[in-house]
Amino acid sequence: MVELASWKDGLAKSAIVEFTDGAVRNVAPPERVAVFDNDGTLWCEKPAYIQLDFIVRRLAEKAAADPGLAHEQPYLAASTADLSWFGGAITQHYQGDDTALKTLAGAVMSLHQSMPVEDHAALVNAFFAEATHPTLGRPYQSCVYAPMVELLRYLEAHEFTCYIVSGGGRDFMRPITDAIYGIPPERVVGSAQGLKFTGDDAGHGDLLIQPTLDVFDDGPEKPVRIWSRIGRRPILSAGNSNGDDEMLRYSGRPGRSALRLVVLHDDADREFSYTAGAERLLDHASTHAWTVVSMKNDWATVFGD
Amino acid sequence: MVELASWKDGLAKSAIVEFTDGAVRNVAPPERVAVFDNDGTLWCEKPAYIQLDFIVRRLAEKAAADPGLAHEQPYLAASTADLSWFGGAITQHYQGDDTALKTLAGAVMSLHQSMPVEDHAALVNAFFAEATHPTLGRPYQSCVYAPMVELLRYLEAHEFTCYIVSGGGRDFMRPITDAIYGIPPERVVGSAQGLKFTGDDAGHGDLLIQPTLDVFDDGPEKPVRIWSRIGRRPILSAGNSNGDDEMLRYSGRPGRSALRLVVLHDDADREFSYTAGAERLLDHASTHAWTVVSMKNDWATVFGD
Repeated sequence: MVELASWKDGLAKSAIVEFTDGAVRNVAPPERVAVFDNDGTLWCEKPAYIQLDFIVRRLAEKAAADPGLAHEQPYLAASTADLSWFGGAITQHYQGDDTALKTLAGAVMSLHQSMPVEDHAALVNAFFAEATHPTLGRPYQSCVYAPMVELLRYLEAHEFTCYIVSGGGRDFMRPITDAIYGIPPERVVGSAQGLKFTGDDAGHGDLLIQPTLDVFDDGPEKPVRIWSRIGRRPILSAGNSNGDDEMLRYSGRPGRSALRLVVLHDDADREFSYTAGAERLLDHASTHAWTVVSMKNDWATVFGD
Repeated sequence: MVELASWKDGLAKSAIVEFTDGAVRNVAPPERVAVFDNDGTLWCEKPAYIQLDFIVRRLAEKAAADPGLAHEQPYLAASTADLSWFGGAITQHYQGDDTALKTLAGAVMSLHQSMPVEDHAALVNAFFAEATHPTLGRPYQSCVYAPMVELLRYLEAHEFTCYIVSGGGRDFMRPITDAIYGIPPERVVGSAQGLKFTGDDAGHGDLLIQPTLDVFDDGPEKPVRIWSRIGRRPILSAGNSNGDDEMLRYSGRPGRSALRLVVLHDDADREFSYTAGAERLLDHASTHAWTVVSMKNDWATVFGD
């Protein structure tokens, strides 16, 4: 039997065990749908999203191959590993100035333009084979939260089906989720660029990445993509930031209870401590009695081996 | 063991059995992905799409509730069961005149505006509980091709995962596919209207149907939605019209063979006989040696009991 061995006894663990037992008694297995945010919920999102590291490396590679680009942003910042430029683009966005963010977005959209989706997956695999976290000193593949992976297995042992529903890139996560979470690509929902089918005369064809944003899977879009993909309401949902608020509110409905988990980053010793970007979610957790998971108090271990 | 008892011995049945045996030897189960068109491939699409009957009934209900509408198209045609008006809209479209089709599309988009997705599903269930095919004299639920349902079970018995990928409405198919095909909602891909999350103060929320088209899952869009949903290339695909051509061409790739099935409607006695709308697909089937399934010659039975 799968046990929640990395979870300390407490309100969060009790809530999970009690809810799961209730679902086993009252909910048919196909309706036992659980959805998990990724960045900050299943793996570490500080000091920057892991996907941003991938993008910066790819921008630097592009500038190295085309030196004319190396004097323009964001290629200059990427080539000189000036991560503050990227942070500044986001800060300026929140201050009402989208100039730098639009420059970045344009470069990101064109980064893999016309590349077949399988070639993109190979680049992602190459990144994860060697990239390490800048401060934790461990491979990104090992920056996943062991208690959450344990929870995925615990739920599956009780005939839940678990999905990742992330604002991060769908095609950035998919090559790695089976290995690190045991979640196959068909259960990964995320943001995505446009794709275009291009066929040849031999009766075959490929999907090529387009320089457009097809889905930004965050906030109110998360419930929409859940219905689009699954066609069922989740009965368990887990997130850690404001972008997960609507997903948690979409879980359950009158007459069918749901467990809503909010991962609280309060463990500066073992991971990071922050609530910025989670204000509304934490406020709703308090108002609606959602279950807050304290990394510091509820998890015996944070990272696995 | 699941047998293909409704299939006569012949090239099509042999191709299926041989391909399946090869996949069991050479392809890992998670990669054994099979995709099926719905209208004309799994269930009957003549004399009109089943979904059109649902829409006409709903338009007539709307006109009955709001008599002011009953003098306008398409409500007038729906209220008087004048199906020729609907056929005319399509014919005019192919002749370059979209006036009637735009009138119809606008009415269809607004038909379920602001309705929660669960309420729409209840309407679909009510339709299938009573509606019967206009000429075959059997409930629509029984207008599914028994050999194809047998094929779904046969593939599943060999650890394939089967999906429906249809130009028809995703939320029109999902309420019924588990009962008639054994395909759950999370494995149904189709066209869809926009959805919008709307929350309340109690921490809950609903998805409401919007008067916009989100996805038209036909032709070159089918491979895009397959990747979006599954993240794997199919190794088996089945269709019957030009809108399935790209899906079949996207199956397999150099180094990995695929089985592409084209259902040929050549059985006027037991179903219908037509190739209109399938010209390009049949041409490609001939050029690329895809497997044509003759309803007349390859199927011992067409419909189950």
